[in-house]
Amino acid sequence: MSLVVVGSVALDSVETPQETREDLLGGSASYFSYAASYFTPVRLVSVVGEDWPEEHTRLLQSRNIDTSAMQKIAGAKTFRWSGKYLSNMNERETLDVQLNAMEQFDPVLPEEYRRCKFLFLANDPPELQLKVLDQCPGATLTMADTMDLWINAQRDALLALLRRIDGLVLNDSEAILLTGETNLVRAGHLVRELGPRMVVIKKGEHGAMFFSQHETYVLPAYPTADVVDPTGAGDSFAGGMMGYLAEQGNFDPATLKMAMAYGTLAASFTVEDFSLDRLQQIEREDLDARLVKYRQMLSF
Amino acid sequence: MSLVVVGSVALDSVETPQETREDLLGGSASYFSYAASYFTPVRLVSVVGEDWPEEHTRLLQSRNIDTSAMQKIAGAKTFRWSGKYLSNMNERETLDVQLNAMEQFDPVLPEEYRRCKFLFLANDPPELQLKVLDQCPGATLTMADTMDLWINAQRDALLALLRRIDGLVLNDSEAILLTGETNLVRAGHLVRELGPRMVVIKKGEHGAMFFSQHETYVLPAYPTADVVDPTGAGDSFAGGMMGYLAEQGNFDPATLKMAMAYGTLAASFTVEDFSLDRLQQIEREDLDARLVKYRQMLSF
Repeated sequence: MSLVVVGSVALDSVETPQETREDLLGGSASYFSYAASYFTPVRLVSVVGEDWPEEHTRLLQSRNIDTSAMQKIAGAKTFRWSGKYLSNMNERETLDVQLNAMEQFDPVLPEEYRRCKFLFLANDPPELQLKVLDQCPGATLTMADTMDLWINAQRDALLALLRRIDGLVLNDSEAILLTGETNLVRAGHLVRELGPRMVVIKKGEHGAMFFSQHETYVLPAYPTADVVDPTGAGDSFAGGMMGYLAEQGNFDPATLKMAMAYGTLAASFTVEDFSLDRLQQIEREDLDARLVKYRQMLSF
Repeated sequence: MSLVVVGSVALDSVETPQETREDLLGGSASYFSYAASYFTPVRLVSVVGEDWPEEHTRLLQSRNIDTSAMQKIAGAKTFRWSGKYLSNMNERETLDVQLNAMEQFDPVLPEEYRRCKFLFLANDPPELQLKVLDQCPGATLTMADTMDLWINAQRDALLALLRRIDGLVLNDSEAILLTGETNLVRAGHLVRELGPRMVVIKKGEHGAMFFSQHETYVLPAYPTADVVDPTGAGDSFAGGMMGYLAEQGNFDPATLKMAMAYGTLAASFTVEDFSLDRLQQIEREDLDARLVKYRQMLSF
């Protein structure tokens, strides 16, 4: 089924203890789209500047990602993010953010996109996420991501969003910040009580937790000795998850758990190299092969 | 099969954000023994002072734990530990340690104990652990725990111990400290290369990882909304794990993974109340019932 994602594409500079890389293809919607594309066609809504390398667009298109609603703004530069990972690779500092073209991001979805059934609102100001939601009244599954900035600075808009979406994906520190509750099991259900029927708390190298009215569970991350760059892991997780749900065309509990597993595995590949480099080397079969190992790991 | 544990019993004072409790039955060997006792008879080697409440001994005996080698030292007080949990319940500060009777702990195992097949060396100075190991030349599975203090202060003795034991159980920060490696998958295998055929890294609320030559896996903690007191979770984990192995009388890969699961579940009950209070309310059936749920949680 049709999957639309609205969010950022970016040029990232990433510093790890081993290596520094500049001008990488990044952004939440890029990682999301690419990971989702193993499962379903994706329609990507974003904005770039004049400095955006066309090869990045071609790379996305090569994976059946529709980029026709990626707007290029004349005279603007592409959104840039730069960050540095500390030695444990699980903590990072944002060194610089230049919103550039993203400051003018006011997505108007093409008519065909508005009839999508699966919609993902990647991390953006909640006011903007709400505007997109208004354009897709027929979506059967709407999920969103958020971040500490909006929890702190646009709490009311975020709470309005939560009352209207089906699912929220956020990381552990954000769940604690949003609820004031440090026990993640309680925090997950408290977020759920703010509106979304399902909540996913991402715990980085420790996996992800799922919460619905009747279910609470946790799946560990796939153990990886070669973590090269964790950037985009959470967005790849969401992409793998939503991509699988859109492919299956439903979101019953068993499908949701499989989706959580595929999200986990998409993220596990993403961190094995910078940018989308590792994902570019794999196909759906590689995800499926790792799924077999993952399932075996969790069987006893 | 016979399981012997050598380690501390203690009187703990624990401060959590909700409540402070004094003079609780604690100590690594207490938690270990109690958790292991659901699976197999346990022989506990430890030392106490004159202030040790006999009711604690009776509680252990009621679970088929042989306390005849728990020595009471005249004129001495029992080992005391007091600690405080921060609001997230995953970090703690040790407020005070009084070794007391533990300073004179020089375990001489009864003849029958020396013929044990399964031996657990709870957290103690590695020199002492080595002395115990010398007394049990016929043990088929020897595992040990350790802590940051010995990694820093008695590294050589610890390395000597590692060359002689079959398995080491330690927490994530200790594995990083011991190896200098922050990726836990690599750290686990680096510890293994120091000697033990198998290594378990405990990650607190995030579960536990297992490493052998041919296997690397992680099992998540059982999600618990009611974490009252995390003290003893790691020792209960080790007790549930070794208890199950001793019950089964082998340690092939499938048995080891089941043991990891039972350890996880023993720990999940322990944290639901102070001291051994929650474990006192459960029987083997409760562990088995939670195992069914845990297995279902990890199935997709």
